[in-house]
Amino acid sequence: MRDDSIMVGLDGGGTSSRAALIFKRGGRRVEVTGGPANVSDFVGAIARVGDLLNRLADTAGLSADGLAGAIAHVGLAGVMDAAMADRVASALPFRRVAVTDDQPTMIAGALGDRDGAVAAIGTGSFIGRQNAGVIRVLGGWGFLLGDQASGAWLGRQLLQETLLAGDGMTPHSPLTEAMYERFDSGPGIIAFALSSSPVDFAAFAPEIVTAAKGGDAVAIRLMREGATYIESALTTLGLTEGEAICMTGGLGPAYADWIDSGLASRIRAAEGTALDGALLLASRLAEGGT
Amino acid sequence: MRDDSIMVGLDGGGTSSRAALIFKRGGRRVEVTGGPANVSDFVGAIARVGDLLNRLADTAGLSADGLAGAIAHVGLAGVMDAAMADRVASALPFRRVAVTDDQPTMIAGALGDRDGAVAAIGTGSFIGRQNAGVIRVLGGWGFLLGDQASGAWLGRQLLQETLLAGDGMTPHSPLTEAMYERFDSGPGIIAFALSSSPVDFAAFAPEIVTAAKGGDAVAIRLMREGATYIESALTTLGLTEGEAICMTGGLGPAYADWIDSGLASRIRAAEGTALDGALLLASRLAEGGT
Repeated sequence: MRDDSIMVGLDGGGTSSRAALIFKRGGRRVEVTGGPANVSDFVGAIARVGDLLNRLADTAGLSADGLAGAIAHVGLAGVMDAAMADRVASALPFRRVAVTDDQPTMIAGALGDRDGAVAAIGTGSFIGRQNAGVIRVLGGWGFLLGDQASGAWLGRQLLQETLLAGDGMTPHSPLTEAMYERFDSGPGIIAFALSSSPVDFAAFAPEIVTAAKGGDAVAIRLMREGATYIESALTTLGLTEGEAICMTGGLGPAYADWIDSGLASRIRAAEGTALDGALLLASRLAEGGT
Repeated sequence: MRDDSIMVGLDGGGTSSRAALIFKRGGRRVEVTGGPANVSDFVGAIARVGDLLNRLADTAGLSADGLAGAIAHVGLAGVMDAAMADRVASALPFRRVAVTDDQPTMIAGALGDRDGAVAAIGTGSFIGRQNAGVIRVLGGWGFLLGDQASGAWLGRQLLQETLLAGDGMTPHSPLTEAMYERFDSGPGIIAFALSSSPVDFAAFAPEIVTAAKGGDAVAIRLMREGATYIESALTTLGLTEGEAICMTGGLGPAYADWIDSGLASRIRAAEGTALDGALLLASRLAEGGT
């Protein structure tokens, strides 16, 4: 069996992880799904990845060490620097493996082999571009200092605007007024915020999207501010006229109404998932790329 | 001894608490200092307040129940609504007591009996006005959703700006560049933020103030944004031309360089501390006010 005869892709995130294997000869694809794998819990993540790979080998009819010759790309949430990538790579059984966080795998999956950009806007956010096989990512710095345009960001901004309006410093919109009443004024909002996670803040995003469509002034301002961030990131990434844009994540499509119409006209559906992207990146690695 | 012959003021915060007692006849003042008292830990705060009051009575030469006839104002950090104020009041030994958070006591202390405004800008922030003995407060909603212009807010904004500049989305200033290098790029900043408290973020504020004075574009923008919030709050509070403005807290004086010059010309030094304010509010209560 040649060394590059098996390619493995793995996509691990905070809620679940998936791995796939392709036999280069014949193209058979095998796939398994498992529990969360975020390297903020390194030992737990490695254990779950190990379990996932054992089941992948088993499902594919390989022996326990059957993956040792494979070439793999592993995208794991929380891999923020080269040191962590090396640490994860050392704990894996592959002959050759590239470890990244899950952003490059999402971008490669959404675009396939095309050049273009991905605005991934869910609870968090990041914006990336693939050009001639090279992927560059902006943003994704998390709830406290980044993730502009994301659901958690929208929700937190709305609560901030609600407090400012409650203080009489800015005019209420119907949406901020409804929020102020729902939480029984400022202390209720603060109590909510102190016990809430980014997912809880993001739960307000659908209301904001709907209110913006309905003409709510504050909701419109927030969607435009998020859209401006996305536009600015696409510009910074050097996106050219011909390149497609994929708006992914739970909120990506909602921004299509708010970004510059020239950009909006270039929005295309994603080609595949982050797992597809991990396999694609593994195949690029097999071909001698990065 | 008449019922209103003793007045007690108490100022409790996250780092320490102080209590003072005045004998109306003769005006003798006794003061004691103790540990932190924030009602986010209700049982702990009440225990510390109880200890403080026992020592106050002792120092003043009163018996253990010598405070029972006193009229008191207690300003405690974390008292965010009437329900909590009632709960604290019920746990205290006074014949008549008003319980608020520590904002009204700071405002009354800084202004004494004058009309005017207080912009209290430290690790957190709030803006208040005293007019004909009535105190109204804006802001103070905490690090996550409010405290605009505060040290923690300035520090967090600087880290956000540093990440945007690091991503190439905005130009670096000397200050953001220095921050980016200090933390060895984005992941270092995120690691810092994840393990940091508002006090840690506020530790960058002196550098921001200095950089703004030195012409750093990002620092200037942040100070102006903070100043705009302060100006807007003063307008919302209905401050009139004749009223003085006290800029208190570790950062209040630094904003004198950045707020509207007409407002800046009305800045006056604070008359007293929050403890003085608590005593003043106790005396207003004794006089039949709120």
